[in-house]
Amino acid sequence: MNTSQLQALNASQAAALLTRRELKSEDLVRACLERITEREGDIHAFAQLDPDAALSTARALDAGPVRGLLHGLPMGIKDLFDTADFDTTYGSSVYAGYRPRTDASPVALCREAGAVVLGKTVSTEFAYFTPGPTRNPHNTAHTPGGSSSGSAAAVADHMLPLALGTQTAGSIIRPAAYCGVVGFKPSLGRVSSGGVKSLSPTMDIVGGFGRSVRDVGLLGAVLTGDTRLSGWSALSASDSPRIGFFQTPSWPQADTDVQRAWEQATRVLSAQAKDCQDVITPENFADLIQLQKDVMTFEMARALSHERIHHRVRLSTPLNSLLDDGMAMTGASHAANLSTVADWRQRIDALFENHDVLLTPSTTGIAPEGTATGDPLFCRSWSILGLPSVHLPFTTGKNGLPVGLQLVGRFGQDHHLLAAAHWVHEHLKG
Amino acid sequence: MNTSQLQALNASQAAALLTRRELKSEDLVRACLERITEREGDIHAFAQLDPDAALSTARALDAGPVRGLLHGLPMGIKDLFDTADFDTTYGSSVYAGYRPRTDASPVALCREAGAVVLGKTVSTEFAYFTPGPTRNPHNTAHTPGGSSSGSAAAVADHMLPLALGTQTAGSIIRPAAYCGVVGFKPSLGRVSSGGVKSLSPTMDIVGGFGRSVRDVGLLGAVLTGDTRLSGWSALSASDSPRIGFFQTPSWPQADTDVQRAWEQATRVLSAQAKDCQDVITPENFADLIQLQKDVMTFEMARALSHERIHHRVRLSTPLNSLLDDGMAMTGASHAANLSTVADWRQRIDALFENHDVLLTPSTTGIAPEGTATGDPLFCRSWSILGLPSVHLPFTTGKNGLPVGLQLVGRFGQDHHLLAAAHWVHEHLKG
Repeated sequence: MNTSQLQALNASQAAALLTRRELKSEDLVRACLERITEREGDIHAFAQLDPDAALSTARALDAGPVRGLLHGLPMGIKDLFDTADFDTTYGSSVYAGYRPRTDASPVALCREAGAVVLGKTVSTEFAYFTPGPTRNPHNTAHTPGGSSSGSAAAVADHMLPLALGTQTAGSIIRPAAYCGVVGFKPSLGRVSSGGVKSLSPTMDIVGGFGRSVRDVGLLGAVLTGDTRLSGWSALSASDSPRIGFFQTPSWPQADTDVQRAWEQATRVLSAQAKDCQDVITPENFADLIQLQKDVMTFEMARALSHERIHHRVRLSTPLNSLLDDGMAMTGASHAANLSTVADWRQRIDALFENHDVLLTPSTTGIAPEGTATGDPLFCRSWSILGLPSVHLPFTTGKNGLPVGLQLVGRFGQDHHLLAAAHWVHEHLKG
Repeated sequence: MNTSQLQALNASQAAALLTRRELKSEDLVRACLERITEREGDIHAFAQLDPDAALSTARALDAGPVRGLLHGLPMGIKDLFDTADFDTTYGSSVYAGYRPRTDASPVALCREAGAVVLGKTVSTEFAYFTPGPTRNPHNTAHTPGGSSSGSAAAVADHMLPLALGTQTAGSIIRPAAYCGVVGFKPSLGRVSSGGVKSLSPTMDIVGGFGRSVRDVGLLGAVLTGDTRLSGWSALSASDSPRIGFFQTPSWPQADTDVQRAWEQATRVLSAQAKDCQDVITPENFADLIQLQKDVMTFEMARALSHERIHHRVRLSTPLNSLLDDGMAMTGASHAANLSTVADWRQRIDALFENHDVLLTPSTTGIAPEGTATGDPLFCRSWSILGLPSVHLPFTTGKNGLPVGLQLVGRFGQDHHLLAAAHWVHEHLKG
């Protein structure tokens, strides 16, 4: 086959070809590496790359049996995951040159399923707000978002078909939105986070990026061990999902680009889906934003204790400020917050009696100009609630930058969410 | 003061003296080191020791300001926690000679509060069932229990006043019971586990061992950031806790030693506490045992993916068998189990409408003879429910080995649990 545009294949398209041995992993890896060579000087998606090791792994996979769902697929790993064959910095100079002994669990699972790790992608400093060097591939004057900056940018720019990320506030959905790719955050607790730098265990979740819903379904199936995430069939018109339209109390922060995307999406879906309704906002739903912030602040200050105590001068001012704030909070308030979170996680389930999925904004607008990674406002509630969500890119806003919306699913029903997301995405892309 | 028996001081007694500068940390550390020299050849509590570093740290603390609640207290750290100045093996030859870059969060927090880390204590292999070399200090022909074997044995044997442990099934409460010390497992989610080897994030929790309830309260206050855990006042007769007696559906597995301890405790408490009632067993409570096993098996197989894939020959047969079982389980069943767990955590709260704390067995009996670490049967339910619990030693059984019972508290009410546990313990010790 023509190998000049292999890097543009979606992960699921490539996986099908690789599994049927109609595409060599080596050729796909080579195409991605060429794209990286061409573009990395502008995008800075990678913290580290190992082309030779990737090609060697690809050749071994080409010569052996099909290993699993990700057989032969090039992948990027956010530099928040431990890797035994790449340095792991967590986006901080504190860990310059640090080489862990062991692959983080999600990395080991992806490799077991046949993935070829090309390199580590740039994370913001400890996945908080201080940005790395990555630029938005659609316009390098704009941020790719954070904290999974490099993963989102690399997938958007066809450097890689698939990449791992993590979300605590909005670190998958936001960069997916800014870079115009599909981002998937599974239900809390479904993916082992062993060997992933711990920030806020109440919310930290591993997920990733692809260029279609089927792409992230492949990745999700490997991460969760649930084959239903890649095994769903496309829904027909007669079994279209029941969609709840949920602007949320943060809606006034959505700019005109998001408003236009919303109008377009709700118009199309209302015409095509058999059941679309506005969501009745649960009482005190707006409180979830502050709750998310408080839990994250408290937990990050403890999780990063060693760095806080021994490396303060090497941490950014915003991070030190967060850690100070967190240490000033009492464990009594944290305990009360954990109880509130548990109550909310039960309460929110009622929303899914009337809706299979919720359509809601991903971001306040397009990727902002500059390096600041943007506002996770529209992601915080879904992070603290632990619900699965998917970002779907489908239009553009100011400066031609990508805009899309988020679909949120019921806890543990990640496969239903993905099937619905595929249906919605097909209709929104037109 | 007479320094010949300093190692016999409880942590809370020593902390009071250290804070008032009536005791030097160096003297206390030296007394512990002498005890270790005398006994370690029989007990094998330590994976690694650094006497010189400990003495140097102690001298620095003696010369400086009081640092915090654990100022000058010698501590042991279960070898499941990363430490930047000790090798960290997780109880496995896979990690022989491994030196992490960073202290695990709980270790950093303890040191920040003034603790002097004497060494790493023996853990079973990845905190599962394959034992290390540690023996029960009361009778070296018997197990100390697991997985926090070395921490429990060292505290019991007056080698250390305080030590860190972790529990996923019964790894704090069981060794505390077998060794006759106080073990404390805080509410799930209250203690950061960053840098602690991840096994089953749904249940993994950091806690520890002391020789009194006030000891573990000091440690708990530091770990949770909640000063109420060390700040409670002893309860008077008029505000005795409402105690629910809960044999649980596993009661037929309790042997005559536990039955005798139960009869003694319920007789004493019924006479002294103003409100003692038998707990009405929640419907399907017995299902929690299998639920705990299933979640742990699924999650450990993923968490230990790197070891499972790359180091199978260096893992024990029981561990490989567990990992195989876990990989054979579906992610779909795990998702369903997580939902069941969430429901249970809400449902169980109703028990605490009528009882402040629950009295329940810790183990099926005394520490078994041999090296097998015993059965966590009576701990599994409380682990999957994420409730705080304390083991209280108060009598002896066969061969003079320790026996006690467990007190379980309401989620997030760790300080109330500890105050109640102190009251109960005082009455049971007679």
